[in-house]
Amino acid sequence: MNDLLKNMRIVEASAFIAAPYAGLVMGQMGADVIRIDPVGGGLDYRRWPVTRDGRSLYWASLNKGKRSIALNVRDAEGREIAQALMTQPGAGSGILLSNLPARGWLDFQSLKKRRDDLIMINITGNRDGSVALDYTVNAAAGFPSVTGPDHYDRPVNHVMPVWDVVAAMSAVQGILVSELHRRETGAGQFVQIALSDTAFATLSHLGYIAEVQVNGDSRPRMGNHVYGTYGQDFETADGRRVMVTAFTQRHWQALVDATGMAGKMEQVAELLDLDLMKEEDRFAARETITAVLRPWFSGRSLSSVRRALDATGACWGPYQTFAQAVTEDPRVSAANPIFEEIEQPGIGRFLAAGCMLDFSGAARGTVKPAPILGQHTDEILADLLGLSSGRIGALHDSGIVAGPTE
Amino acid sequence: MNDLLKNMRIVEASAFIAAPYAGLVMGQMGADVIRIDPVGGGLDYRRWPVTRDGRSLYWASLNKGKRSIALNVRDAEGREIAQALMTQPGAGSGILLSNLPARGWLDFQSLKKRRDDLIMINITGNRDGSVALDYTVNAAAGFPSVTGPDHYDRPVNHVMPVWDVVAAMSAVQGILVSELHRRETGAGQFVQIALSDTAFATLSHLGYIAEVQVNGDSRPRMGNHVYGTYGQDFETADGRRVMVTAFTQRHWQALVDATGMAGKMEQVAELLDLDLMKEEDRFAARETITAVLRPWFSGRSLSSVRRALDATGACWGPYQTFAQAVTEDPRVSAANPIFEEIEQPGIGRFLAAGCMLDFSGAARGTVKPAPILGQHTDEILADLLGLSSGRIGALHDSGIVAGPTE
Repeated sequence: MNDLLKNMRIVEASAFIAAPYAGLVMGQMGADVIRIDPVGGGLDYRRWPVTRDGRSLYWASLNKGKRSIALNVRDAEGREIAQALMTQPGAGSGILLSNLPARGWLDFQSLKKRRDDLIMINITGNRDGSVALDYTVNAAAGFPSVTGPDHYDRPVNHVMPVWDVVAAMSAVQGILVSELHRRETGAGQFVQIALSDTAFATLSHLGYIAEVQVNGDSRPRMGNHVYGTYGQDFETADGRRVMVTAFTQRHWQALVDATGMAGKMEQVAELLDLDLMKEEDRFAARETITAVLRPWFSGRSLSSVRRALDATGACWGPYQTFAQAVTEDPRVSAANPIFEEIEQPGIGRFLAAGCMLDFSGAARGTVKPAPILGQHTDEILADLLGLSSGRIGALHDSGIVAGPTE
Repeated sequence: MNDLLKNMRIVEASAFIAAPYAGLVMGQMGADVIRIDPVGGGLDYRRWPVTRDGRSLYWASLNKGKRSIALNVRDAEGREIAQALMTQPGAGSGILLSNLPARGWLDFQSLKKRRDDLIMINITGNRDGSVALDYTVNAAAGFPSVTGPDHYDRPVNHVMPVWDVVAAMSAVQGILVSELHRRETGAGQFVQIALSDTAFATLSHLGYIAEVQVNGDSRPRMGNHVYGTYGQDFETADGRRVMVTAFTQRHWQALVDATGMAGKMEQVAELLDLDLMKEEDRFAARETITAVLRPWFSGRSLSSVRRALDATGACWGPYQTFAQAVTEDPRVSAANPIFEEIEQPGIGRFLAAGCMLDFSGAARGTVKPAPILGQHTDEILADLLGLSSGRIGALHDSGIVAGPTE
């Protein structure tokens, strides 16, 4: 983590992906992120993937670098501690990040009474507060209907929880914009983000809504082609597959040069009466271009394909399984400055990413592992709330807080 | 657009998705975003989807609310104007957002000589500067190998350009964090983001890398199931499909209650010796649970399914095509405050989204259409650079700048 946000403190009351991911991003840019979990762990504490002995790699991966307090907010005293943390005085504090319902201990108006310039970010499923998750939002957004093999007649879900991550990134923007504004004006902010809105806004921003309303049509399912341009997957002689694109004239030329197909592509252009220097014409000619290129790929190994395409600067990439990405791709290794091997207590060593961005004015720092649940309970109660060791002991005794349990 | 960032000005030199999407997000929170394009338009000016007369709905959707200057940067005078805009003095100015190569007119060190506290965000394909696009990065990241129908043996690409959007959201974070830091310290920043790093960091943050390294395995392709929990699509009596999830005990109970399957699910639990209140046990029992539920869905219309599942608060959603989302879903309509119908010059009226976030302390404002290419050339040259009308006329005459051309 770098230290650009070292003057900010975020209290995170969360579960699953969107809010934890946002807290992770903030923490990796230097913010002190305090995650509040129920004693014994919340809804996501045992989520898959898990190790053979049931420890969640998901939880450990999403909570890197945070501090953890285990707190029973069903108890009035527990709620009081949570609210005191969220509304603690001081510049850069008073920021609450949550994807739990904004009521009870997370009611904005009650919290605002304790700190008038509170910034609270709340992520919901739908805008009206009704439930929605990434997978139900994605179904509604239209993408599953155009994903998957040509002529397949059922929806194909994505596996990567896109909308959770987009909502997370939006939440980070909400925090940063609100903090800039608070520094200018002194005013706090209640910021709401609906998971479904992130999907529907993206439909607008990428032109899908205009396409339906202006052109009156929905685009069809077209396998691994890319709509309106040239993109295609090919199999190599050694049974690997590659994705090849030619969106720009330069990339088209690089592909034609690498494969030695200049003459054949002239024939394709003449045959179909198209100008293959135009993106839309490459799209129109995609099946024929693919038919011409296929033998070139199927006759060569991945390493031979790689040499030829890289030599001309073609825009392509190999398909990799997760295991291949982790074991074969140098971009997913400690040779890439974003990665570092960490020692995760109770789990062991694995490669973990820090901040996605490089800032010239801030050293990357180290990637920190996730806390053990409750690891920082006592230090947070003592240092931030000034509780005595006797008081902290009593809170443990009554089960209102818990320390590290594993 | 709200006005939270009204004191910021971003100069955008961009093409395709990642940088334009970042500029759009900044603009919709009030920043003055000036997009520089070549005279006649850049690489993405005619990208699909297009209207019947060739106007790009993609370009119009990604550039909402920006100002446009058309400028020939192959000419020294054009480059001088571009650099003067990027390094213009004043608090909140001096921010450059680009996904073009950071050399020549976009060389950070040359620009920094003109404004020492410049903030420059540069998005590249790979960290080493080599080319990569969303589709090639996604192939390498592993998701296509686990997306699509069970037993399908080829990779399935996503259609939504996930990594472009994640890179865009990261770029926005880069701008905001750098600006916070500049206000604190006076220092500028060169911020680099590699598209491929956004994918590989996400693999880390969601636990995929740890899963390979700690457990030694890659998860298999499993259709529309959700790994480690219960999620399944069903067909309804009227030929629609729905996605149903039960990640939490509450959602499982809601699904069981809505479908009246409490007794059958007890039988399933006994049959398989599992505890269906546990997420991992619902995953283990997924085929059987699905077999029990399938007749319930296939015997009811979508509207009947909707009534029953909504009544108990189950977590589900209908699959919709893009056209169905736009024409049938009230969340994609002017009834949703994020949406507004705009009049896009040269194209017509369509529904467009503003800022994804609601800020309690800032009115949403209106959603603004995209500029016509070169629409603001003259006002930018006059107001920001103080050029005389004679000088501006000469720049037009020599083809170094252009005004609105349509």
